[in-house]
Formats: sequence, structure tokens, C-alpha cells
Amino acid sequence: MKYFPSIQHIKYEGKDSNNMFAFRHYNPDEIVNGKPMKENLRFAVAYWHTLVNDGSDPFGGSVNNRDWIHNDPMETAKNRVYANFELLEKLGIEYFCFHDLDIAPTGESLLEFHKNIDEITDLIQLEMKRTGIKVLWNTANMFTQKHYINGAGTSPNADVFAIAAAQVKKGLDICKKLNAKNYVFWGGREGYETLLNTDMELELNNLARLYKMAISYAKEIGHEVQFLIEPKPKEPSKHQYDFDATTTLAFLYKYGLEKDFKLNLEANHATLAGHTFEHELRVSRLNGVLGSIDANQGDLLLGWDTDEFPTDLMSSILAMYEIVENGGLGTGGINFDSKVRRSSFEMEDLFLAHIAGMDTLARAYKIAVKLKEDGFFDNIIKERYESYNTGIGKDIVSGNCDLKSLSEYALKLKNNDIKNPSSHIEYVKSKLNDYL
Amino acid sequence: MKYFPSIQHIKYEGKDSNNMFAFRHYNPDEIVNGKPMKENLRFAVAYWHTLVNDGSDPFGGSVNNRDWIHNDPMETAKNRVYANFELLEKLGIEYFCFHDLDIAPTGESLLEFHKNIDEITDLIQLEMKRTGIKVLWNTANMFTQKHYINGAGTSPNADVFAIAAAQVKKGLDICKKLNAKNYVFWGGREGYETLLNTDMELELNNLARLYKMAISYAKEIGHEVQFLIEPKPKEPSKHQYDFDATTTLAFLYKYGLEKDFKLNLEANHATLAGHTFEHELRVSRLNGVLGSIDANQGDLLLGWDTDEFPTDLMSSILAMYEIVENGGLGTGGINFDSKVRRSSFEMEDLFLAHIAGMDTLARAYKIAVKLKEDGFFDNIIKERYESYNTGIGKDIVSGNCDLKSLSEYALKLKNNDIKNPSSHIEYVKSKLNDYL
Amino acid sequence: MKYFPSIQHIKYEGKDSNNMFAFRHYNPDEIVNGKPMKENLRFAVAYWHTLVNDGSDPFGGSVNNRDWIHNDPMETAKNRVYANFELLEKLGIEYFCFHDLDIAPTGESLLEFHKNIDEITDLIQLEMKRTGIKVLWNTANMFTQKHYINGAGTSPNADVFAIAAAQVKKGLDICKKLNAKNYVFWGGREGYETLLNTDMELELNNLARLYKMAISYAKEIGHEVQFLIEPKPKEPSKHQYDFDATTTLAFLYKYGLEKDFKLNLEANHATLAGHTFEHELRVSRLNGVLGSIDANQGDLLLGWDTDEFPTDLMSSILAMYEIVENGGLGTGGINFDSKVRRSSFEMEDLFLAHIAGMDTLARAYKIAVKLKEDGFFDNIIKERYESYNTGIGKDIVSGNCDLKSLSEYALKLKNNDIKNPSSHIEYVKSKLNDYL
Amino acid sequence: MKYFPSIQHIKYEGKDSNNMFAFRHYNPDEIVNGKPMKENLRFAVAYWHTLVNDGSDPFGGSVNNRDWIHNDPMETAKNRVYANFELLEKLGIEYFCFHDLDIAPTGESLLEFHKNIDEITDLIQLEMKRTGIKVLWNTANMFTQKHYINGAGTSPNADVFAIAAAQVKKGLDICKKLNAKNYVFWGGREGYETLLNTDMELELNNLARLYKMAISYAKEIGHEVQFLIEPKPKEPSKHQYDFDATTTLAFLYKYGLEKDFKLNLEANHATLAGHTFEHELRVSRLNGVLGSIDANQGDLLLGWDTDEFPTDLMSSILAMYEIVENGGLGTGGINFDSKVRRSSFEMEDLFLAHIAGMDTLARAYKIAVKLKEDGFFDNIIKERYESYNTGIGKDIVSGNCDLKSLSEYALKLKNNDIKNPSSHIEYVKSKLNDYL
Repeated sequence: MKYFPSIQHIKYEGKDSNNMFAFRHYNPDEIVNGKPMKENLRFAVAYWHTLVNDGSDPFGGSVNNRDWIHNDPMETAKNRVYANFELLEKLGIEYFCFHDLDIAPTGESLLEFHKNIDEITDLIQLEMKRTGIKVLWNTANMFTQKHYINGAGTSPNADVFAIAAAQVKKGLDICKKLNAKNYVFWGGREGYETLLNTDMELELNNLARLYKMAISYAKEIGHEVQFLIEPKPKEPSKHQYDFDATTTLAFLYKYGLEKDFKLNLEANHATLAGHTFEHELRVSRLNGVLGSIDANQGDLLLGWDTDEFPTDLMSSILAMYEIVENGGLGTGGINFDSKVRRSSFEMEDLFLAHIAGMDTLARAYKIAVKLKEDGFFDNIIKERYESYNTGIGKDIVSGNCDLKSLSEYALKLKNNDIKNPSSHIEYVKSKLNDYL
Repeated sequence: MKYFPSIQHIKYEGKDSNNMFAFRHYNPDEIVNGKPMKENLRFAVAYWHTLVNDGSDPFGGSVNNRDWIHNDPMETAKNRVYANFELLEKLGIEYFCFHDLDIAPTGESLLEFHKNIDEITDLIQLEMKRTGIKVLWNTANMFTQKHYINGAGTSPNADVFAIAAAQVKKGLDICKKLNAKNYVFWGGREGYETLLNTDMELELNNLARLYKMAISYAKEIGHEVQFLIEPKPKEPSKHQYDFDATTTLAFLYKYGLEKDFKLNLEANHATLAGHTFEHELRVSRLNGVLGSIDANQGDLLLGWDTDEFPTDLMSSILAMYEIVENGGLGTGGINFDSKVRRSSFEMEDLFLAHIAGMDTLARAYKIAVKLKEDGFFDNIIKERYESYNTGIGKDIVSGNCDLKSLSEYALKLKNNDIKNPSSHIEYVKSKLNDYL
Repeated sequence: MKYFPSIQHIKYEGKDSNNMFAFRHYNPDEIVNGKPMKENLRFAVAYWHTLVNDGSDPFGGSVNNRDWIHNDPMETAKNRVYANFELLEKLGIEYFCFHDLDIAPTGESLLEFHKNIDEITDLIQLEMKRTGIKVLWNTANMFTQKHYINGAGTSPNADVFAIAAAQVKKGLDICKKLNAKNYVFWGGREGYETLLNTDMELELNNLARLYKMAISYAKEIGHEVQFLIEPKPKEPSKHQYDFDATTTLAFLYKYGLEKDFKLNLEANHATLAGHTFEHELRVSRLNGVLGSIDANQGDLLLGWDTDEFPTDLMSSILAMYEIVENGGLGTGGINFDSKVRRSSFEMEDLFLAHIAGMDTLARAYKIAVKLKEDGFFDNIIKERYESYNTGIGKDIVSGNCDLKSLSEYALKLKNNDIKNPSSHIEYVKSKLNDYL
Repeated sequence: MKYFPSIQHIKYEGKDSNNMFAFRHYNPDEIVNGKPMKENLRFAVAYWHTLVNDGSDPFGGSVNNRDWIHNDPMETAKNRVYANFELLEKLGIEYFCFHDLDIAPTGESLLEFHKNIDEITDLIQLEMKRTGIKVLWNTANMFTQKHYINGAGTSPNADVFAIAAAQVKKGLDICKKLNAKNYVFWGGREGYETLLNTDMELELNNLARLYKMAISYAKEIGHEVQFLIEPKPKEPSKHQYDFDATTTLAFLYKYGLEKDFKLNLEANHATLAGHTFEHELRVSRLNGVLGSIDANQGDLLLGWDTDEFPTDLMSSILAMYEIVENGGLGTGGINFDSKVRRSSFEMEDLFLAHIAGMDTLARAYKIAVKLKEDGFFDNIIKERYESYNTGIGKDIVSGNCDLKSLSEYALKLKNNDIKNPSSHIEYVKSKLNDYL
């Protein structure tokens, strides 16, 4: 059975196409930066938003038309697998990402859940073989079920910690089984609702314990995997411990985990933390932990995660530029952690929305490469910091001076000697606009 | 000459007093938690807000009536010293904090500035001797002058770095001269206006270089001082590198500086970063870096630093509780980084505002001690996390288990076995209210 | 059957009580401001949060233990009625509020829904008679069902408008049947997701049409009812037309409806709009449209509606003060539009949370009355604006001057003639704290 | 004397130009939408940001290099006039806007201030005659001087009200003298710092009184002028009465002033109020009060007014589209209420920044016209709301139905009859991107 019978393989038709079901900017085989675009971008579909999400929100029920829903949850789960691969094949997307709860019903017990996971991942394996489509990363959902009310690795309840550990174990088993190169932790309830009843020290120690167990277990089963942590500042928790990229780095340093993890950064999580996406990417890149991205966008006038498909071109360019500077994402990729707006509830919107996101990011990537080739930012920075290449500046970066010698130097300066050039930043922004 | 001739030494008169110029809650000699209140709280006056600030804002000019203003800036500077000590004596406050720029005019050159500083600090020294009043901490203002337009330690201009280094050197010299036990860095322009022209890596490396030079220099001159960094997320910069407590910790870990610094935390900076003040204090306390606080409060519906005198009682209680848990602040104290509202422009408002803040924090401190004595939070936490004291929980915290053993344990659990008790958090909050 | 068999009628035991199931501040029969407290406060239970809400959030499933859930939705609906009246009786609360969807299952068609409503409201009527408990207000839920995806009165789909009209009609029929004195409109989806596809003019005209039809119909059926609009700026919509109190006033003026409506103000909606609750109440009071309140509180560091039970004492005092100044709320009351935190999932938490809210507001109300009796704010304002009682000030407010005469007057003033007294606002806040 | 001797008249050189001092998109004489671009856009320079602003911020001093500063404030004032006209001529901008305080020193008394204004406006008049450059609007600055600490028209001090009235009178006299077609009120301190001491009713009544006096006086002196109010939600006040467009409309309706005023909308004020700029423009357009705009942009991650030159292309397109739909701005225009970033402190940055803004808005305007010509939005809206053109929809908008008839209609609908089409909003956004 086909879930999208009227939709054919999506082709690149160029920017003047009026075919809604065609790429206007993303040409998977176009060589940019020395590689085909599909290798540069390594797009992935988010199973939860695309196959599972029903369009409900805190004030409204299910709205999405999804033909794979069946009375028997296992049938629904299987239908979703077929729909997933059909969608990816038709979109020409080679990766997908999922939580354990996305793919299989939890049943009455953990045992039953694991059995269901085994059955569904067998099916996924077959489809992967048939299509060549791969898993970018998987993860365990440790926030939806009732027992996770106060967190998983940070739960005040040791039994809950144990269940979380069991889910992580199973997650790593699946990761190996499906040969995923990355495994993600997103701690939606690893944080607090209120400090009034929170033992933050124990909770963070326990979280580190869980991570260390995961690293040991991956070694034990011989699966070389890149662990990723996905920061988010809040929602559902009032405060989440992995607030942003830098907060997560502090945690990794404190517990000696900085070699074992990279980050999976999301645009909308960045803005909820008060940062631009490019800030989070830059921080991660400079610390060697830019692992993968969750591509989406938020609404800066709203205070919650909207997970929109990315269509903001300028913001996408600045994000793609960091990826270009990073030399790509290694084993990571660009996962669309994006959901169709509630008013785009038709099956075909899943295609239209992914096309919108892919076109936006492809256009952005090509512009980012052009900016790099033109030395647009490199020239600005080279000129701006040139004083550190000679004289006192060189001494500073080489460690050849101290407060005394610098003070002696400074005391000889006349005020007029200090030349700060103008940034001409309005011109820079205007010129950057011409890349659009 | 007296600047506040009509105001006498402020006395504690108890909560029913209608004397505006009396403490109603702060009794400096009252023994609480085994010490006189003045030793528990170690209040300090912020020189900039109290002696220097003129009440101007981005849309309006100077409004504050300040009798110490003179045509000659050195005379003004000297007047301020006398006014400061008169104010502190009358308020019974034993500490003050200042930037170099607060106390002396910058003159035409760094040399002249240093000369001015020497003259004023001589005067300060005399007044300190006369009164017994001490410096809690000093710092160098490296953001006001024109050359700091793009930062100090993170300036793209090496000459500016050198000037900053010279100011830090002089700052440490003064610190020793005045026997201050702490030295603060607040990097108001150590950040960026835009990522488009920022070499974040070089800037952060340079900032670390400056800090290391400061540590070396303090050793060199034989001054044992606690270095403090004060986080703030933004304003004046779009982004400041010391965004919040945890971000600053990440920086310290990365550059191996975590033993050399503690943090100076400010309430209004916490909320601008999206945190409660108690969150920042808790994070710092648990990481052993709770050094000192800048007591004030912001307006959560406004997006800039308002630096109000603290009058929010509940928020103050939660802050004081962290200090009680920390066993006090060591060499640190409670600096009123607070300014009178623009409409409180009279000289006497400086008294009324400090009294308001001192009364609020004293009341809060006494309640915090009562909460500790009653085991209010301790009992909640003890009960909530008790599962980690025995059985599987004990195994988890002792490191006696791994994913496999935990998974085995979890697979045996029936769903009904998982008992998460209710938090009864509404009751907790209501009961906490009864401490007001 | 009893749903709360272990809980007895909640009694006032005074502030030193350690009985969790007792009032410590709310004494329903205490005479304050000339009336028993229960008449001053006219508390109401929100059916949706208390009887219907299951504790799910966007990242997690149902958690609330609720013994009234039955496989047959009509049985659940009936159970809820009994639970509601048991809860109200035991809490001593005399009012409740509900949406049509809260009380009865929607079934397969509007017709079936209306039939269900009839059956349940018959039962409610019996219970009302038995207990003396009343409906404060009812409303139609025109946002949850799928067809309301783009709004109700502002839907781009005329059929949807018609269904909304039918729900409002039925809502007014119930309102009359149950003798509710108020009928509320909250337009959760009366707004837009994006301006890109929105005909704002038609949508607002249609919304006004719906309101006018409601007014006509109430007259037609002879039910004297106070219509109320509840403002909220956003969530679920990106923008809601009834953004805040003043925005709603503008709408009412534009469509000539200002005599027909009052407002139902909610604390958490106020803060989402960037205002304090007391601001929204003040604006409404001064415009004669302060109709009723939805008592709750939000978290100003979070960007969504948290609907917490009110425990912030100072904020509650300022809200209650506006109600005191308004001479009460007329036919309105204080509806707890508050939900237990997700971690307070036990049945008994419904009691504990309401007790917390009632105690907080009772304490706040008594303080507000004291502030009024003491003339605390009245004296400040009288003194601050006294210049408008004589001379040029009196001329201004009497209309006895124009730009020319004022200019003549002003040109004679010397700068020193202008005396703005200090607000001493820090003292005011500190003194206000002493009422806690 | 020339202030920009090295800069020639800025010419349009097309998008491939690498001349920093050339337009790449704004061609003043290009005919678009039936008119030359310069008539479509009616650009104006903001005197305060461009001639007066010194680049200081709350944490830093003056940084801007401005050659017109002289020891004698009147000389500075005259120099600024010449610099203004030189700048406008070279940029080809035909309008400017100013506050009274921008153009002349206040001196020691209102009388002296008026004298200074007379002298400077004589000079401005001469330059206007020489160049053909016009005043778009003027206004009185009633927030900077010390006596305006608590507002002007809403001051608790009647003397201050009188001074404000005198400034408005003089403002209208100048308005006539310089033949400006608009007069603006921006009430930066017409609001409150705290509700605790505010008589909101008297303050708003007084504000309305001031406005009515202004209307009368303009009639009296026979100057036909469009009065404009500029909304802003906060800063410097905690709350400003003209919070946003709709709030201002409510005020106008309440006081019967809705025919006498239009609005001057600013992008950055819109976002501070929680709205997009296009929202504010749409609301104003639909209410017939879209009078003029203050073109700039803010940073949505910062909580204060940054007044950046507009370079966000998509946001500018949506703003320009509202202007196209409005049939232009009548007597209004596009005032750059924008200041150069602090790091762009050179004289030439004034040119570069205006060029950046003009190029952005010109490009945006041309795209907006193309969108209108293509019916891009019109087609979406026509299709989306078509149900109101026939059948029950037509009856609704014609007033031919009531709750009863609509309920009858709705009760006959089967659930399947309700057809809400998908918005395909992701496709719409992607397609809109192709206009960039």
C-alpha cells in the first residue's frame, strides 16, 4: 500500500518552477564545495513530528489527517514504517531519526515494549536494506510516560532511574542493530519544576552516572557511536540542566565527559535560551563539539518551542556558514525537528513542508559556500584583529608579556594613539543582503 | 562639611516604628545563626550607584540632587569620599565597592588617571583608618571609555588590551593598598555586538590570558585576594561571554581557572539570563564558587537591568537561604548594586533606599535561618530522594550497577510498582508563605 | 459514591494550624469590609482544570489520578458532576464555571452534543438545588474541536461560524437554565497564526457580528446576563484579537459594544501580554468594565500560560486592592483558573491547591482592606497630585485654559520654581512590605 | 564649510556596484507603482539620531566623531543645520524630522529656549528655501529635561503640564513656520514607573486635555496639520499609555479623538510590545490611521529599543506591503528613526547607514509592489474566505441571520460536511522566499 499514491519522486526543477511538488533550490546531485549537495546536507526526517504528531496542542485536539492510523497500535506502528520509507524515498532523503516511543507502542510493561521494538526494528531493517536509507540517530524518549513526571536520570525515584537505564540500554542495542552512527540524549524533564524541592547536586551526579554507563555499555557491545546531547533551556521543565551549548559544556567538563560527547543543536532551542542559532553553532564549533543539528525555526515573539520548518533565509545562511567552517558535520546531519503548522494538516503537507525546508537550507548552504569563497567574513575578521599579528598584540597572544610590561606600554600611549576603526556594520549587513 | 547634616545614625527601632530614618527589621547587633546580623550580612555600598550616578537614563538627563558636585572633578572626587564615609557611618554599613573610574577622574592620560587614583586612595585610606570601614572589593571599569567600544580583554585592538591590563594592574595595586579581600571582573563589553565580525576564539583566549596575568600579578605583589567574575548575559553588549553562572564555569574549566575564581552573582543579571536569582546562587554554591552577591532586583516585565533596591521579600528569602546553606560568603558580602529610582532623586533617598534594602534582606535572612532550623526544605528533600539511600538507589549512587543490571531490575518491575509520590507543591508554597 | 471519602469539610483553623486540610487564613464567615469573606471573594472552581484536566503537557501524557474516569464518556461526565459538587461543598466554595465541552461529550454530531448537555445540565440543576451551589459563568469551548482550527467567530469558513453560533446559542440557553449571571467569551483561536493569509478586517467584523447576535438572543430569551470577554495575547494563536484589556476596549468602542460587555481578567494572561495583573485590573476598573477575575499566576521567566494556583502574596494584595476599590465584582467573582502542577497528581491535591489559593487571596484581601482603611495609597496619591486642586492645576482640569494661556504662565516660571517632590518609592515599597 | 567634503552626491549604480557610497537598489527616479521611488518612499532623516546622538549608552560615554561640536551650544546648533542639509542633499533625501530640543539649546529658561528656536528655525528656513528640502514632522521633546521626571501631559505637577503645553504651542508655531504637514506626539514618560503612586484616571484625562488644546490651537493659527501619536509600550517608563497601535486607538475612541489623529508606527516599538511591525501597520491601516512610519529594526533577543537601520529584508517587505495596500502614506513618510551602531562612529557611517536602510526599503518596496501585482496575498485571501461570498456565509456578513437560524443550519451539518482546506503555509512561505 502507498500512503502518498498521487505524489511522485520529488525532482529538482529550478527556481522558476511552479510545481508545488518539486525542488526549486535543492538539487541533490549538484556539486557544491566539492561534494554533491545531498552529502553536504545529509537531511533527516524526524519520525515524531512527521509520522507520529497528530497536530494537537494544549488547547486543541488532533487535526492531522494521517492514513496510517489503525485501531491496533502495532498495525499503526508498522504502517508508519512503510509511510516513513515511502516519504523518504520520494523526497530523496537518506536519513531519519527516532525515539523508541515513536516507533513502537509501550504496551503494558517494559518487556512488552521491548518486544514491540524488536518487531518494528526488524521491519525497519528490511526497509533500510531495500532502500539504502539509514538512521542518522536514535534516542530514548524518557519524558512522555507518567513515571517520568520528575525526570529520568534525574528522577528522585531510583526505580525510575532504573527504567531510564533500561531504555538507554535498549536504545543502544537498537543503535547497533540499525547501525546508527549517533545516539542522542535530550533531557526534557532532566531539570526542575521548582528549586523548592530539588536536590540539584544529586540529580546532576546521577545524570552523569547515566551518561557514563551509556558510554561503558556502547564499548561493551562494541558499537562505535557518537554520543550527542541536545540542549534546551526549558519546556516542559521550568529549567532544564542542558540549558544551552555552553551550559552543557560546563557539565561535560565537570564530569570529565568532554571527549565523549558532541552536541545536537536546535535553532528553536537556541532562541528560547536567548541566543541566535549561529551563536550556539559557533560556540560548539570552537569547542570541537558541533555534532549534528536539529533544523527548524521558532517565533521570537512566542515563548515556546514552535518547531517550524526553516524558511528564514538569512538565519539559515548564518547557520550553514558555521557548518561550512566546521568542515561539515562528520557523522551528524541535518534533522528536520520541524512539524507542519496545525493548519497544514493534510498528508501532502508533509511533502510541501520538507520541500520548503530543504529548498531553504540548500539555498542557504550555497550562499554560505559563496561567502566562504569570497572571503566575506574572513576578510572582515582578518582586518579587524590584525593588531594581534605584530608588536604588542603578537606579544600578548604569544604569552610574552604580563601586567607590568603591558602597563608600561600603555602608560606611554597617548589617547590619540588608540585607533579603533569603525565597524561599518550597517554596510556589512547591507552587503550581506546582496547575497540573498 | 557634612552632606547629610539632618540625618543621624540610623538606629533599629523595631517593626512598628514610623520613623522613616530607622531600621524596622535590621538590627546590626542581633545574634542570628550564631553571629551578629552585621557579620552575617556584611553589607556594602556600591560607589557608582550611590556616589556617582546622576539619574540620567537613555531618554533623560541628570536629575539627582547631589551636593558633592563641584566644577573641579578632583574636588568632586574628594567630596564623594567624604560623603561615602558619612553615609556608611550613619547607615552602619562597614564595606563599600568601587570601580577605578568611580573614585577618580580619568584626566587626559592613563598616567594622570593613575595619579588621581593615588591621591584619592590616600584619602580613602585615611577615612578607612578613621572609621574602620573597609573595601569589600574593587574593580576596573573597562567599558565606559571610548577606546573600550569593542571590549577590553576581548578588544580586537591590542593597544586596548594593553590599557586594560594596565587598569587591572593598578586595580590590584589599589586592592592591596586598601587591603580589599576580593577583586571583581565584570565584562560589560567582553562579548559581541554581532557575530558577523567577531573572532570568538581569539577573544576568549585573550580574556583568559588577561585573567591569568592578573593571578600572576597578585602573587607577585603578595596580595592574597579572591578573584570574582560577575556574570551578565547582555547589556550593553548583545551577548556577554560571562552569560550566567554556568557559562562562566564552563569558561573557567576550559582554561583551567576553576580554582582561581569565584562568582559575584547579581539578582537582576540572573533574571536577564532567564534564571531566578536562587538558581544562580544554587549553581554557584554546589560548584564551590559562591563568592559574593550584588543585591538588587529587576522587573521581569522589562528587558533591561533596572538595579532596584531589593524589596521582594520571597525572592530575598530564597537567596538568603542559599547563603545560609553556603555557610556565609567567606570574604564576600552583600553589595547593594542598586540605584534609587529616578523619581527618588533627593539626597535623603540614598538613606531611605538603603534602609529599605537592608530591612528586606535582614528580614529575609532571619526567615531563611528559621527555615533551616525548622528543616523546612531539608525535610522535603530528604523524603523526596530517600530511594537513593537503600536498595537499587544506593547501588546507583555507589556505582555498583550498570545499564545491564539496571535493565534487568527494571524489566522485573510492574507498572504499578513505580510509586512517585505527589509533590503537594501548592501546599509547600502556601506553607512557605506563612513564614512571611 | 464519594470521590474524596477521607476528606471532611475544610474548616478555618487559624494561621498556626498544621492540618494540611484546613484553612489557615480564609475564614468564610469572618466579617471584613462589612461583609463575610465568602461574599467578598465569591470563589469559583474552574471545571476544566479541576474535573477534566489530566495533567498532560506537550511533552507528556496523562498523569492525574482521577477516580471519576469511566469507559463510557457519559458516565465520566456524570461522575464529574458529583465530584464537582462534593469538592465544592467540602471546600465551602459556592460557585463554579465551565465550558460546554467540559461537562458533556461532543458525540458524533452537534445534535448529540446538545442532547448530552441537556442530560448533564439536568443533573447539575438537581445538585445545585440540593447544595445551593451556583454557576458563576459558563462559556462555549470554540477552540478544541478540529473544525475550529482557524478560529470560530473569526474562522475563514462560514460553516464553522455557524457551528460557533449554535454553540453560543446553546451556551446562553444553559446560562438561563442554570441561572448564571455571566456569560464569558474567550477567543483562544480568534486571532491568527500568520498575517500572510489573514483578512483581519473581515475576521473582526465577523467577531463583532457574533457578539451582537449573542446580545440579541439573550434579550430574546429574556435572560439578563453580564457578557464578559477574557483577553489573552497569544497561545494557542500567535496573536489573539483580545490581546489585553485595552485592546478589547478598543474593539468594543469600535463596534459600539462598550455598554454590553465587561472583562474577565486573568493574572497569567496579563503577564503574557507584558502587563502586571494589577495593571489590567486598574485599566478595567477605570473604564467601568472590571467584571470578574480568573485567579491564577504565571511564571514570568516562562513564555506560556502555566495557570498556577495563586500563592504570590504581594501580587495578590495589589489585585485585591483593585477589587476593593471597585466596590467588589458585582455579579462576577474569583474563578480559580488554576491547575495543579503536574507533580501534584493526586486527588487530594485538588483540595490542597484550592486551599493554598483561597488562603492566599483571603490574606491578600484582608491586607488590601487594611491598606484602604489606612489610606496607604490614597494618601500617597492625594499628596502627589495636589497641584491639580488649586491654581493653574485646577484651571487645567476645569478646562479653563488653552495652550496660549498655559504658555504665558509657563514662560513666567523660573526653572527653580518647578518643584517635583521625591517619590521616596523605595520607602513606600518597604513600608508596604510591612503589611505582609 | 562642508562636513562631508570627501563624499559626493550618492548615486544609484545598480546591484553589482562595489562603491560603498552608492545606492545598489534605491534609484530615486525609477518609476514603480506609477511614481518615482522617491515619491513612493518619502524618506526622512531623524535629526536626533543623525545630528545629535553621541553614541553613549547606559554603560559608556560619547564615541561618535562629529565635527560640528563647538564649545558654544548655539554654534553647535547652527553647524548641525548645515550638516543636516549637506547630508540630505548628498543622500537625495527630501525630508527630515526633529524635536525642539534637537535643534536648539534649552538655555536657562523657556524664554531663552524659544529665542534659540526662533534663531535656528530662521536658519533652517533659509536652508529649506535653498535646497527644497522639507520638514516631514516636528515634535516637542517632553521627556529629557529634569522637570519631566514623571511625565509631561501626565505629570502629577500642574506646572510641568503648563510647560509641556508651552512646548507644544511653540512646536505648532514652528510646524506652521516650516510648513510641516504633520506634528507628532511620543509620550516617552506619559506612563508610569509604578502603579503604587499613580492616578491613572487623572493622568489620562490630562493627556487628552493636552491633545485637545493642541487641536484647538492648530485651528486657531490656521495650520492644517495631521496630528500623529507614536506608540511605544515601555522604556523609559515601565508602562507607557500609548502601548501599541490598538491601545492608542482605544484612547482615541474613549476621548472622541479618533478623527483627529493618525499613528506614527515604529518597527522596534512594535516588537517591544510583542507584535510584528506588519501587525501594527495592518491594525492601523484597517482603522484608517496609518499615518507615517519610523523605519528601523530591533533585536528580538534584546529587551530594549536598539533603533537599528533596517536591513531585515523580509520584515521590510511585509511592512512595505502594508504601505502599498494603504495607497501610500499621504502626508506621512518614512523617517529613519535609526541610529548607527556604537561601533560605526565615523562621520561617513551616517552615509553608509542611510544607504543601507534606503537600499533595503527600496528593494522591499519593489518586491511588495510585485507581490501586489502578482496577487500573491490577494489570491490566498480570496480563496481562503470565499465561503463568505455565497450561501450562509453571505447571510452572515449581510446580517441576514441570527443565533437561531445559524443554529438550525449548523444542526443539520454532518461532521464530514465541514471542509477546512489546508493552509499549505510552509509552501506559501517558501514561495514568498523566492521573491527575495
